[in-house]
Amino acid sequence: MEQIGIAMIGCGTVGGGVAKILAEQQERLATRCGKTLMLRRVVVRDPGKARPHIAREIITTDAKAAINDPSVSIVLELVGGVSAAREYVLQALAAGKNVVTANKHLLAEHGAEIFDAARKHDRVVAFEASVAGGIPIIAAILQSLAANQITGIQGILNGTSNFILSSMAESGASYADALKEAQARGYAEADPTLDVDGSDAAHKLAILAQIAFGVTVPFAKIERFGIAELRAMDLRFAHELGYTIKLLAEAWLDGKEVALHVAPVLLRHTDMLAQVRGAHNAVQIVGDAVGEMMFQGAGAGALPTASAVVADLIDLAVGRAQRTFQAAKLWSANARGFTLRAAEGVRSRFYLRVLVRDIPGMLADVARVLADHSISIASVIQHEALEEHSEQVVPLVIMTHYAPTGQFRAAVKKIDTLKGVVPPGVYYSVDD
Amino acid sequence: MEQIGIAMIGCGTVGGGVAKILAEQQERLATRCGKTLMLRRVVVRDPGKARPHIAREIITTDAKAAINDPSVSIVLELVGGVSAAREYVLQALAAGKNVVTANKHLLAEHGAEIFDAARKHDRVVAFEASVAGGIPIIAAILQSLAANQITGIQGILNGTSNFILSSMAESGASYADALKEAQARGYAEADPTLDVDGSDAAHKLAILAQIAFGVTVPFAKIERFGIAELRAMDLRFAHELGYTIKLLAEAWLDGKEVALHVAPVLLRHTDMLAQVRGAHNAVQIVGDAVGEMMFQGAGAGALPTASAVVADLIDLAVGRAQRTFQAAKLWSANARGFTLRAAEGVRSRFYLRVLVRDIPGMLADVARVLADHSISIASVIQHEALEEHSEQVVPLVIMTHYAPTGQFRAAVKKIDTLKGVVPPGVYYSVDD
Repeated sequence: MEQIGIAMIGCGTVGGGVAKILAEQQERLATRCGKTLMLRRVVVRDPGKARPHIAREIITTDAKAAINDPSVSIVLELVGGVSAAREYVLQALAAGKNVVTANKHLLAEHGAEIFDAARKHDRVVAFEASVAGGIPIIAAILQSLAANQITGIQGILNGTSNFILSSMAESGASYADALKEAQARGYAEADPTLDVDGSDAAHKLAILAQIAFGVTVPFAKIERFGIAELRAMDLRFAHELGYTIKLLAEAWLDGKEVALHVAPVLLRHTDMLAQVRGAHNAVQIVGDAVGEMMFQGAGAGALPTASAVVADLIDLAVGRAQRTFQAAKLWSANARGFTLRAAEGVRSRFYLRVLVRDIPGMLADVARVLADHSISIASVIQHEALEEHSEQVVPLVIMTHYAPTGQFRAAVKKIDTLKGVVPPGVYYSVDD
Repeated sequence: MEQIGIAMIGCGTVGGGVAKILAEQQERLATRCGKTLMLRRVVVRDPGKARPHIAREIITTDAKAAINDPSVSIVLELVGGVSAAREYVLQALAAGKNVVTANKHLLAEHGAEIFDAARKHDRVVAFEASVAGGIPIIAAILQSLAANQITGIQGILNGTSNFILSSMAESGASYADALKEAQARGYAEADPTLDVDGSDAAHKLAILAQIAFGVTVPFAKIERFGIAELRAMDLRFAHELGYTIKLLAEAWLDGKEVALHVAPVLLRHTDMLAQVRGAHNAVQIVGDAVGEMMFQGAGAGALPTASAVVADLIDLAVGRAQRTFQAAKLWSANARGFTLRAAEGVRSRFYLRVLVRDIPGMLADVARVLADHSISIASVIQHEALEEHSEQVVPLVIMTHYAPTGQFRAAVKKIDTLKGVVPPGVYYSVDD
C-alpha cells in the first residue's frame, strides 16, 4: 500500500491527539484512504520529553530537515503563533509539500501570502481544524453548501468565553470567579487575553469571511469586544427580558456589503445558539438555498481537533483536498466583489444599561438624548439600587428599536456626559 | 468552459428547486466548479405543464433517450419510489453515467445492487439529499469525520413527525388535530403513513447505518414505531418528568454489534435534540475522536433539498465525489465486521403508562410483574382520572431503571393481562 509521509511540527495538545489517532487507527485510516498515513518526523523543542504514540527515532528539533525529508509529502503545522509558523508553512510549500494547519491566527493574518505561495508551488493548504475544532464548518461551506451564497454566519467560536458566560448565567458568578473556574478546569489559559477579548474568535471569523464571502479582511478591521467587561447584572437583566448573552462572531451579507464583528450579543432564550453551554462551539449559517442550519460540537481539545486534522490528511490522501483547494480560489482576487461594511453603518437593536444616581429626572434625560439621535425605545426596566454600590446608584436598562450602530454609539457617548450618570453606559446588540 | 450535461428524471418539488438553482446561479456554480452545469433533458410525465426555469425543448417523457443522450454525463434521479427509480438508476450506470439521487427508499432497499452496478461500470452514485435534506450528514460522516469510528447516531429525520410532535407538545393538541394542521401547512401529505409510522426515518437510518458502520440491513429488520399511537397525555406526563418526546432514528455501536431502531423516545428538556422544533431535522453524532456533535437544519423543502443535490453535482464536476465513492466502499463486503443486535437485547430505561381501574391494588400488581421480570422502578406518578374516559380510568406512569428491552416487553405483555388494566400499556425508551 502506498505510504503518505507526514512531518508534524509542534507536538502539544493537538499534536498528541493526532499522533494517538495515527498510531492507534492505522488500519482504519488505511481502509478509508487506500493509503497508509505515516508519521515520519515530529519536530519538537524538547526532544527528551516522553511522548506516547511517537517512536523516539522520528523526534527531532530540526524543522528544516523534517520539511525537506524526501519521504515527507505533507507538513502538519501545529506550532501555533505567527512568525515561526509562517516560516515553516512557506518553506514547506516551497519544498513542494502540502500543508495541513490548525493555525487560525496565521491564516487570519497571512492567508493571502500563504495561499499565493501554495498556488505558485502548485500545492495545497488544508485548514479544517483552524475554526471550531471538531466541527467541519470549512468543509460544509466550501463543499456541502457550495450551491448557496452564504448570507449570514453566527458563531460561538471561543469555548473559553462560552464556558465563562455559561457559568456566569447559570450560577450568577462574577466574571472573575467564572474565569478562575475555567482556568481550574483547563478551559482557560493562565493568560486568557486572546480568548476573552474576542481576538481568537475574530481570527476564526476572518477565515469564515474568506471562505463564505471571499473577502480578505485586514485583521485590525474586524471590530471586536470581549467578555471581560460583562457584569453579572447584565446577564441577569438580559435574562429577565428573555435573552441569553453569548459572545458571537457574526458575518452578515447585505447587498454587496459584509458586516463582521465579534461581540457579546443578546439572543432569545429559544434561539438554538442560546442553548449552547459549556466549552462547546456552534455555528449557525444561513444560505440562500438551504436556509438556516446549525452545527454544534467540541471547539477544542486534543481529539476533537485532531479529528479535523486527520480528516484533512485523509482528504489529501484520497485527492479531495487538491480539488477543493483549486475550486475554492481562496485569498485570491475577490471575485464576488463583496466589500466590508463599517460597523457604524450596521443597523441593530440594542440593550443599554446605564448606572444613574436619580431615576425620575435621569430617565427623562437619557430618553431625550436617544430621541435626539432618532433612536426609539422599545422597553425600559428600572431596578432597585445595587448592593455593590455604596452610593445610591440605580441601573436603568433600555431596549431600543433598530438603529444604525454609529448613531446609537454617539447617543451613548452623550449619555455618558450627563450629570447623574455613572459612565460608561454598557450596550450590546440584540438578535431578534 | 467545459460543460457537464445533466438529465433530470422527475420534476416535482425538489426537481423544481434544482432547476431554479441551475438556471439562476449558473455563474456562481461555474465559478465553484470550473465547469458549466447544463440541464440537457428533463423527464416528466406531463410535458404540457408549465415549468419555470426549464426550457420547453429539453422537456421529454422519454427517460431512455434522456439517459442515453451522449451530451449527458450525470443522471439525476428524482422520481422517488422504488421500481421505476431502480430501473432508471441501473440503466444510467450501465450507460456509463454518474448518478445523483435523493431517493432514500431506493437506497435503503436496493443499495447493494445499485452500488455493485456502479462499481461494475466504474461510475459514481452520490446521495447527499437522501438523508436530512439540506443537512450535509453524508459528507460529514464519509469525509469530515473519517478519522472517527462513529459510535452513536440519534436523528430527528422526519420533519412531518417532528412538526406534529412539536405542535402536540406546545399546544396540547391531539395527534389527529396536529396532523390536520401539518397537512394544511403542506408538511404532511394526504396519506402521511410513511412519515408517521417511522418508515421514512427508517429508510434514512438504513443509509446512515451503511455509511457509519458498513452494515447492510434488510429493511424489514429495522424495528420501527411511529407516532400515530402517541396520546397527548403521554407528552404531558413526559413533560412533567422533565422530558420531551421526539421520534428518533437511533443507531448505537456496542462492541461489534449495532442496534438500530426508529421510535418515540423521551429526551431530557435540556438535550439539544429536544429543542428541535417544527419541521426541522437534526442529527446528533458521537465519534470516538470528535465526541458529540449536532447538525440541524431543514430536512425537506424544494431549495434545501436542492442545495444538497446541487452540492453532489458540484462534487462530481470537481472530481471529489469520484474519490469519496471509491474510498467509502459502500454496500460492499462488510469490512468492519459489525452485526445487528436484536432489539430484545438492547438495554434501556423505559417510560410505561398503563390505564387502570383501581389504583391501590393495581400499583402493587403492576409493580409485582415488573419485579418478577427483574425490572426496577425509578419513579411512579399517579394521576387523577382522565376526563376522556367515562369510566373511572386512571393513568399510572412508571419510569424504570435500565433493563433489556425483551424482558421489559414481556413484563408489559403480562401487565396487559392483569385484571383492572385497560390494555395496551404504552411505553417508550428514555434517553438519559
